[in-house]
Amino acid sequence: MATIKDIANKLGISVSAVSKSMNGASDISEELRQLVLDTAVELGYSTKRSRKAEHRKLVLFIENMEYLSEEDFGYDIVLGFKQSAFKGSWDVDVIPVTPSFQMEDKYDTYLLRNGYSGAFNVGFALHDEWMEQMKTTTMPTVLFDNFIRNNPNTCYIGTDNYEGIEAALDHLYKLGHKKIAFLNGSLHSMVSEQRQYAFISAMRNHGLDIDEKLLAYGYYVADSARYHVPTFLENGATAIMCGNDLIASGVIEECRLKGLDVPGDISVIGFDDIPLATEITPKLTTVNQNRIELGKIGYTILTSLISGIAISKSLLRPKLMIRESTAEVADH
Amino acid sequence: MATIKDIANKLGISVSAVSKSMNGASDISEELRQLVLDTAVELGYSTKRSRKAEHRKLVLFIENMEYLSEEDFGYDIVLGFKQSAFKGSWDVDVIPVTPSFQMEDKYDTYLLRNGYSGAFNVGFALHDEWMEQMKTTTMPTVLFDNFIRNNPNTCYIGTDNYEGIEAALDHLYKLGHKKIAFLNGSLHSMVSEQRQYAFISAMRNHGLDIDEKLLAYGYYVADSARYHVPTFLENGATAIMCGNDLIASGVIEECRLKGLDVPGDISVIGFDDIPLATEITPKLTTVNQNRIELGKIGYTILTSLISGIAISKSLLRPKLMIRESTAEVADH
Repeated sequence: MATIKDIANKLGISVSAVSKSMNGASDISEELRQLVLDTAVELGYSTKRSRKAEHRKLVLFIENMEYLSEEDFGYDIVLGFKQSAFKGSWDVDVIPVTPSFQMEDKYDTYLLRNGYSGAFNVGFALHDEWMEQMKTTTMPTVLFDNFIRNNPNTCYIGTDNYEGIEAALDHLYKLGHKKIAFLNGSLHSMVSEQRQYAFISAMRNHGLDIDEKLLAYGYYVADSARYHVPTFLENGATAIMCGNDLIASGVIEECRLKGLDVPGDISVIGFDDIPLATEITPKLTTVNQNRIELGKIGYTILTSLISGIAISKSLLRPKLMIRESTAEVADH
Repeated sequence: MATIKDIANKLGISVSAVSKSMNGASDISEELRQLVLDTAVELGYSTKRSRKAEHRKLVLFIENMEYLSEEDFGYDIVLGFKQSAFKGSWDVDVIPVTPSFQMEDKYDTYLLRNGYSGAFNVGFALHDEWMEQMKTTTMPTVLFDNFIRNNPNTCYIGTDNYEGIEAALDHLYKLGHKKIAFLNGSLHSMVSEQRQYAFISAMRNHGLDIDEKLLAYGYYVADSARYHVPTFLENGATAIMCGNDLIASGVIEECRLKGLDVPGDISVIGFDDIPLATEITPKLTTVNQNRIELGKIGYTILTSLISGIAISKSLLRPKLMIRESTAEVADH
């Protein structure tokens, strides 16, 4: 566990400045106080104040998603949530869950027994046991990328998938691409459904044909590319949109193995903008989800639910990051 | 303008308790402080503090909507927004706008010249001059019931129309209604489009036929009923869903003129739950939009936009209020 000194060292300020910031001293600027708190959370520091306030506890359940390393999709979501919660004087437990973990205890029971006022649920699958129970939960519950109908104790937060896919497709269209393939993520996820729908509607808006042979569901791993890229190429695709960056990196690798240049011969776009996107060659054009902000609005909405404001849905704007993996369509 | 004494009288507390609450004295509970601030806003009190802070100004533009009386749809939206903004030490100007007002000045120019940090826009129509300009505005702008694509400086807030219409239709279906008419609001509004789409999809989900003769667009006034109710009745409708409460009250009146009993002969449902809904006979079953909360999240989202968090959409849950205007389908 980090100490006050660790925080002082990391920020290059004195121990007493850190201590004053922690205690809300009036001669410390609000900006510095926030920076100190952010750093404290990042380094895993836990103040006595937050340990004492045992009745103010939130839980972040996470499944099907890596989050421990900065490279991971979930890392910034967890960090943003914890930073905001910490500023609001809430304790946060981050608990990775599995299907079997969900069988051990009812969702509401687990929260009540452990004194949680609410939960932020990240990465759950549609068929999860607890997803079923969230339909009737009485516990304030924010879900990342999942929507529960008709339960005012729950709220869906995420990135606007329609705008993200639309922006990516507009970009490809302006580059002259017409035969555009879509290698989506996992079939059984709400987000994949939305992106599929958005892709089809954006293609139609541009007057482009939907070719079933250029549509496929992969999974959230690079390997999916191996099975689908050959079919796409045989059917004349000049660009491939991907349901996430991992799939896109697999697609680029697969193209390389086939002797094709990205973007000279074929353009590739990802979704998410994880750190990997700028580490591969060529750097990936992709749709950015601001995961720190997702974590922060997760907290904001959760406290709204706790205070009885029944928000059903809150979405962030995506941002298209144009890098090196897309270019004008090649003359064939 | 209200005085501190007015606030004290209204709450039945001492003038000094009001004064202390205003100044954030530590021996005043947070609950009392908030109550005092809410009451101050409600009574139109303006503190020196808020007058001084001229650089912290928000504007609420309102068009096509009454808001000055408690009976009006806009009243609580304005109140909720002002209450939250006041707690956050923002001044708020409420400015009714007209089409010609929008021609006098560019939207951004108006905000900048008057020192507003952001705007909450209520009741604008799709063809408004300023709506066009909001597509590219650089000013943080929250819109009630309007969505601007691809501009991260804007956010749409409202009530989840899909859930509202679905809940109303489920209710009628359980009462045995199958021939359900829908008299929607104004044709040229995003909200009407969403409700129309939601109605059609909810009918299909229940395996009910869509009869074009049972679908019509009215306007946001009771008069629309006169033209459409006869057609609905001729075509066998046993229930009429309405785009808002005003239309519903017109429908009930029209049924009465035709010697029909609501809900004995025909069921009627509204949307909004304005005060009128409980003042008419029979009391109206309707979909509640929590307008105080709409005002409050309007403020929350606007401050998020001002601090650079690009939320695109944030929706409240509707709530079906079952009262006296709906009943089991009559045997014909």
